[in-house]
Amino acid sequence: MPTTEALSPTLALAFELIRRPSVTPDDLGCQVLMIERLERLGFHVERLPFGDVENFWATRGHHGPMLAFAGHTDVVPSGPHLHWDHPPFEPCIDDQGMLCGRGAADMKGSLAAMLTAVERFVTAHPDHHGKIGFLITSDEEGPAVDGTRAVVEHLREAHERLDYCIVGEPSSTARLGDVIKNGRRGSLGGVLHIKGVQGHVAYPHLARNPIHQAIPALDALVREHWDAGNAFFPATSFQVSNIRAGTGATNVIPGDVEVVFNFRFSTEVTHEQLKQRTEALLDAHGLEYHLDWTLNGEPFLTAEGELVDAALRGVEDVLGHRPELSTSGGTSDGRFIATLGSQVVELGPLNATIHKVNERVRAADLDDLSRVYEAILARLFVNGTAQP
Amino acid sequence: MPTTEALSPTLALAFELIRRPSVTPDDLGCQVLMIERLERLGFHVERLPFGDVENFWATRGHHGPMLAFAGHTDVVPSGPHLHWDHPPFEPCIDDQGMLCGRGAADMKGSLAAMLTAVERFVTAHPDHHGKIGFLITSDEEGPAVDGTRAVVEHLREAHERLDYCIVGEPSSTARLGDVIKNGRRGSLGGVLHIKGVQGHVAYPHLARNPIHQAIPALDALVREHWDAGNAFFPATSFQVSNIRAGTGATNVIPGDVEVVFNFRFSTEVTHEQLKQRTEALLDAHGLEYHLDWTLNGEPFLTAEGELVDAALRGVEDVLGHRPELSTSGGTSDGRFIATLGSQVVELGPLNATIHKVNERVRAADLDDLSRVYEAILARLFVNGTAQP
Ligand SMILES: [Zn+2]
Ligand SMILES: [Zn+2]
Repeated sequence: MPTTEALSPTLALAFELIRRPSVTPDDLGCQVLMIERLERLGFHVERLPFGDVENFWATRGHHGPMLAFAGHTDVVPSGPHLHWDHPPFEPCIDDQGMLCGRGAADMKGSLAAMLTAVERFVTAHPDHHGKIGFLITSDEEGPAVDGTRAVVEHLREAHERLDYCIVGEPSSTARLGDVIKNGRRGSLGGVLHIKGVQGHVAYPHLARNPIHQAIPALDALVREHWDAGNAFFPATSFQVSNIRAGTGATNVIPGDVEVVFNFRFSTEVTHEQLKQRTEALLDAHGLEYHLDWTLNGEPFLTAEGELVDAALRGVEDVLGHRPELSTSGGTSDGRFIATLGSQVVELGPLNATIHKVNERVRAADLDDLSRVYEAILARLFVNGTAQP
Repeated sequence: MPTTEALSPTLALAFELIRRPSVTPDDLGCQVLMIERLERLGFHVERLPFGDVENFWATRGHHGPMLAFAGHTDVVPSGPHLHWDHPPFEPCIDDQGMLCGRGAADMKGSLAAMLTAVERFVTAHPDHHGKIGFLITSDEEGPAVDGTRAVVEHLREAHERLDYCIVGEPSSTARLGDVIKNGRRGSLGGVLHIKGVQGHVAYPHLARNPIHQAIPALDALVREHWDAGNAFFPATSFQVSNIRAGTGATNVIPGDVEVVFNFRFSTEVTHEQLKQRTEALLDAHGLEYHLDWTLNGEPFLTAEGELVDAALRGVEDVLGHRPELSTSGGTSDGRFIATLGSQVVELGPLNATIHKVNERVRAADLDDLSRVYEAILARLFVNGTAQP
């Protein structure tokens, strides 16, 4: 294993971050590490703790459009260390050249790459055009209420301009930079209680079986064609995640059934339309029900524009191949940032091992990723593709 | 409250039985009380304990057909005594003339009525035609494995003849003797596990949602017309009692779903046919599943014959009205006895309060019930309607 002195600045910083077992919402000094280096570069740093979540917002520059790097210092739990080939919070580069440790891919490696990219860029262009920002939270993997969402509300109230945002989430699938996410589907959750009349299975005429009543309605919801998607989004999908009825007694018709479901929806429907159509369908089945909705995130999309251009070209400049744009997968903090009207892309390392044991990423990819981030800065703020 | 001395022999015995809190499978001396009196009448008594269940089989007479009275000394739990108007194991006759206490209706009242009926009948006809039997268990309300079922197997091995059986279950609904049950539907239970492929709701194409797969199959099972019933049985019914899938996480497509269901079936289908049809239907839906079956009881029916005749006439003799024959409701120990080829009817007091707090029965009904049982004995063994 190389000593820290032999590591590139990006890998050295990644090691320092991974050594801190900052399981959500703990930050354990990761942000202070970043803040000290950003202040040394002339960044103005505003620490924005909310509840037990650490956040900060850092900016440099006074004129022109803002490009912010966004990310999180928290990681998901490691599980028992004995399931790992190397202890999860003792970073190392293995004999395959992989940086191993919890957070290597999601997303301490990206944080290190952003920071060293900005260090090189600012050193080379101390009077760069545009503004550079960092929006960092310690709660992306958790409830995500006091993290990016709260910081975004703070920025909105402060009328802070955020034109472009690169989220460091691991977007790559087979090789670094093969995929850039330029949007995400919306997520809408429902908890449905269908009420029947409890009774004995021997006397079904005295009961009303809520499972039997639910089945045709659920069948209709599963079969419903919610939309056809569009050029950027797959069709909206409906999935039941949980269903529960009955006390365990085999001779009792239960009094109610609970169904938990989730929509992942495109920009072709609104969450209001999904709610209305769902309820109309339940009503049409004559159900007695109660339905609680949770909007986890609106869909967002950065179909085109300077940021997508710069990101595509930045990858091509450094890696020699052109990324594919995608909106697939789960939600990310991009959904909150997009509400500021920002162009948002997610660009980071390979996501094959995230949230798993033996999380790891090719060490050389992080150095390349840092150069890609630097190339995007150059595309926007040196070659002048950014809007004034 | 009348003193025990002022009570009729039937009510006095009912009091003595109710005083023993013989919650399943405890007997607490109820059977010894009955056995002592039966032995005094010349009965031969065979005690047949199995596991922790007390049972006995008593017979009197050596020639001709056997009429057995069947019943149970166990009762369901009372729940907290403070919910009762009178303590559940301190029998009393209230100011409405109701015998109150756990077991008054189900079925210590019937046990007392049978025993005093036989006492009077044997005293009047010491050399009666036919044989009289008692098949008594302390586990009818529980698992019912070591109770009547085990005694019936013992009788089968002993080649004991059991032509007619009166089960003392509370069959009456609005007034004593308005309903005689001459059969019961079968009960067949299934526990179905449908296997899917677990995944994330954001990637449904990588998963196979077992809830979505189950819904159309369950819909078909619920809609299936299993049979039309017949003159004695309502149509076979299918009820789902429990359904369960999901870990509680709202973003995970579960890996399997468990469905617990129950058939109450008529004599128009066999349990083998129900199993085959269910499995064919699941196969037709292309499900990957595992299905465990439990046959709780075959249907039985005593459509007509000497016992039904004698029971109808016995009620008419004593009470002046003609009962209705019915096969509705849950299972009873009659299902086991019927496998001996016996004619079986259930005839007992009103069932309005069974298994509830403040279980009670009209005290005068138990005296009438005893006279009805005696009249049936007379119809079969004195007036000679029984087959030789
Ligand atoms: Zn992440
Ligand atoms: Zn009973």
